[in-house]
Amino acid sequence: MMNVKVLTLFPTFFDSFKETSIIKRALDKGSVHFEAINFRDYTLDKHNNVDDTICGGGAGMLLACQPIVDAIKANRTPDSKVVMLSPQGKKLDQKLVHELARNDDIILLCGHYEGFDERIRDYVDEEVSIGDFVLTGGEPAALVVSDAIIRLRDGVIRSDSHEDDSFENGLLEYPQYTRPVAFEGKMVPDVLMSGHHENIRKWRLKESLRKTYLRRPDLLETRKLNEEEHKFLQEIIEEEKQSR
Amino acid sequence: MMNVKVLTLFPTFFDSFKETSIIKRALDKGSVHFEAINFRDYTLDKHNNVDDTICGGGAGMLLACQPIVDAIKANRTPDSKVVMLSPQGKKLDQKLVHELARNDDIILLCGHYEGFDERIRDYVDEEVSIGDFVLTGGEPAALVVSDAIIRLRDGVIRSDSHEDDSFENGLLEYPQYTRPVAFEGKMVPDVLMSGHHENIRKWRLKESLRKTYLRRPDLLETRKLNEEEHKFLQEIIEEEKQSR
Repeated sequence: MMNVKVLTLFPTFFDSFKETSIIKRALDKGSVHFEAINFRDYTLDKHNNVDDTICGGGAGMLLACQPIVDAIKANRTPDSKVVMLSPQGKKLDQKLVHELARNDDIILLCGHYEGFDERIRDYVDEEVSIGDFVLTGGEPAALVVSDAIIRLRDGVIRSDSHEDDSFENGLLEYPQYTRPVAFEGKMVPDVLMSGHHENIRKWRLKESLRKTYLRRPDLLETRKLNEEEHKFLQEIIEEEKQSR
Repeated sequence: MMNVKVLTLFPTFFDSFKETSIIKRALDKGSVHFEAINFRDYTLDKHNNVDDTICGGGAGMLLACQPIVDAIKANRTPDSKVVMLSPQGKKLDQKLVHELARNDDIILLCGHYEGFDERIRDYVDEEVSIGDFVLTGGEPAALVVSDAIIRLRDGVIRSDSHEDDSFENGLLEYPQYTRPVAFEGKMVPDVLMSGHHENIRKWRLKESLRKTYLRRPDLLETRKLNEEEHKFLQEIIEEEKQSR
């Protein structure tokens, strides 16, 4: 059982996420429990506020220590991993998704307004960013993290479909085709219709390497290539040179 | 007016997004139109299918050309920017968010299952990835892109709160505090309570540089520092050396 709690000012943001497709199936099966909890339920402020102006001046409001820290304390267990979504965090990649998915109990904190009082970071185990862009709040980021980790837990998707995914083997996915063989003059490559498994395997590996070489050469810098992959890459470099 | 159309197999995924907070306000004001449209509405298959098995073998199903291409053609205008969300795309950053937000008419394509028939890419203007991780489908990514671009359009947030955000000036945000001055023994830094604007400005700039230096040194490699920033960075490097 995996337990995902999102602490947020906008718990209803996650309603549709819980009700859709693959995630709904996981929640229905009981392999994952997902809950969105309102910070506001924990404020001691008599006007129900959770935010206040910024010390030293500046536009906007900041989430204050008391309601946020009390919400964390009320929802964490000794095993919880408390993750703050923040543009300043460690960049999410598939490796970090796997690490996070190993926790049976995870708490995701969504910032809003101008962000969190800095002192709240002392109550957080890890700060995670989904990328170098600015969102209206932490909610879309928490949704992305939840989707990525729930997907990995047993029973959510077939394990055989993990392995071909982009990033799981360090390369972009090869081009894939379905019927019809001809669509507006564009054809499925002959080899894929040949039924020759070894040729199909080789074509896919080479085209996977080609896509990675053309679009994400940075992935090739960190990945060790075996002999076959190395040979294909040399061919690709030659072919691309000539096609230019 | 900005027109965002998301083409997806799960249009209800976006219901809560449209109903929440800042995005709801933008939609209510009429400065942005947002619509989620089902690929399935465009299939000519008598069983209403939009997917088929993968040529050459492999687990899972692929979105087929006819329903997806017809959905694109029916919804695009001569000015539309058609964006496919895909792990193979150009990595989203705040610069790309600004570029996308300049389009008044944007169509976001969400993949699902094992992805799209490769030939569909010929009908797409740009392929965008929100990061190197695997999601259950393109929907969470389309939600992130929508949030980031709608946020930038006039009237959604105050323009003065743009500029301090992380990434907008190439540095991580400085630490921010709100009342109370003391929380569980943790204090707001004195300078922020001093009322001395120039000292506050300097402290914030320096701590913004410090956070960036400690957490995201890569951002400093590409950013030109002015004289003051350069001086602060030298001090920070010295201070961090001594604190270790």
